Amino acid sequence: MIFGAILAGGTGTRMNLTTMPKQFLPLGDKPILIHTIARYLKCEKIDAVIVGVHADWVEYTNGLLEQYLPGAKNRVKVITGGTDRTDTMLRLLNAIEQTYGASNEHIVLTHDGVRPFFTQRMLEENIAAVYEYGAVNTVSPAIDTIVVSEDGKTISSVPNRATMFLGQCPQTFRVSQLKAVYNSLTEEERKTLTEATKIYTMRGLPVYLVQGAASNIKITTPADYTMAQAIAEDFED
Amino acid sequence: MIFGAILAGGTGTRMNLTTMPKQFLPLGDKPILIHTIARYLKCEKIDAVIVGVHADWVEYTNGLLEQYLPGAKNRVKVITGGTDRTDTMLRLLNAIEQTYGASNEHIVLTHDGVRPFFTQRMLEENIAAVYEYGAVNTVSPAIDTIVVSEDGKTISSVPNRATMFLGQCPQTFRVSQLKAVYNSLTEEERKTLTEATKIYTMRGLPVYLVQGAASNIKITTPADYTMAQAIAEDFED
Repeated sequence: MIFGAILAGGTGTRMNLTTMPKQFLPLGDKPILIHTIARYLKCEKIDAVIVGVHADWVEYTNGLLEQYLPGAKNRVKVITGGTDRTDTMLRLLNAIEQTYGASNEHIVLTHDGVRPFFTQRMLEENIAAVYEYGAVNTVSPAIDTIVVSEDGKTISSVPNRATMFLGQCPQTFRVSQLKAVYNSLTEEERKTLTEATKIYTMRGLPVYLVQGAASNIKITTPADYTMAQAIAEDFED
Repeated sequence: MIFGAILAGGTGTRMNLTTMPKQFLPLGDKPILIHTIARYLKCEKIDAVIVGVHADWVEYTNGLLEQYLPGAKNRVKVITGGTDRTDTMLRLLNAIEQTYGASNEHIVLTHDGVRPFFTQRMLEENIAAVYEYGAVNTVSPAIDTIVVSEDGKTISSVPNRATMFLGQCPQTFRVSQLKAVYNSLTEEERKTLTEATKIYTMRGLPVYLVQGAASNIKITTPADYTMAQAIAEDFED
């Protein structure tokens, strides 16, 4: 089976929000998170969508699903996320196996709740590539020059821009392998390694690249939210 | 003396413009390039601003200056740019020395014509740092994970994001040293090395970092232009 997992455990601190995490802010006719869920549901290859939100927002999210996606009840499941990104990811993987059984054939596309402008083309390419390569990262070529500074004060190196990409989502994995890779982390590694693709790369596992888009932004600041509203006006998928 | 140099030699191909390079598009009450020039002029430490545009647009640019910045005639000079970025940069440096004489004390802030949202704080910090370190790059911390791929197909490495920065402008140098560094390039190097900060780093010369801003974008695509219009509404400097 093929699953869409959504990480939406954030509580919105970078938006200076005291009342509502940013994934619940409106964008056009519906909240950001509902855009993200609906985009997954539009892809018929995806059997089910699992959303991890903070415990305080599970009921609220279920209410939004009732309101905006009433016909999708049997394809979407909301669970309580964890204390950090990795914890939420592992809870999503466990929820998949508890509900649908463990299988080496299970595929999971992972996505940020606050990154609503991905496309069906990206989903299709992620799914096609994961069967061949085992792991996939959606990326966008670096437009700005990337500068490396080890001390944050002076430049250490300026790598060849043609080899530099900005990591986006979806990231797609085999469920069983992703669990095994997370479980291989030491306590120390788990504190610092929050990027699944980085762990794969460190373990010598291939991660295939799929082309994202500059518009596939993550909404984390008020400026991003302003830009998202501009993108939403023209966005077609 | 302290000079503000503006690279505006582009002809707008990435915007699919057949009539007008993007630096001349309107943003609020005036063209993008006029915003950029006016931002430099606002900084009293900058003695003169030199703008390099394509030969076909020199007269047009002088007309814009008449219209939008009539009082600045003796602080702004428009010259014909070159066939590429490096060529335009060298012409700007030569124009400075031809007009104001050569001096080891000359400082040049270099900026993209299509990057109008820099601030007086960035200019002040560039000027302060160049006297101490000799070269300065305005940068913004990477928000997205940066992914390195040597072949463009699979991930080679995922560097520590805390060490990764997006290069912006201004970039600030001593005029005489910048000329010497460019002149030290072989024919082959000149074809591939378009980033002055990269050449400095390769030559073992320190380049100090100054904090930019996410809003300090370069307007190169229609999506950037849409975002720029959103930024312009709230921008204060």
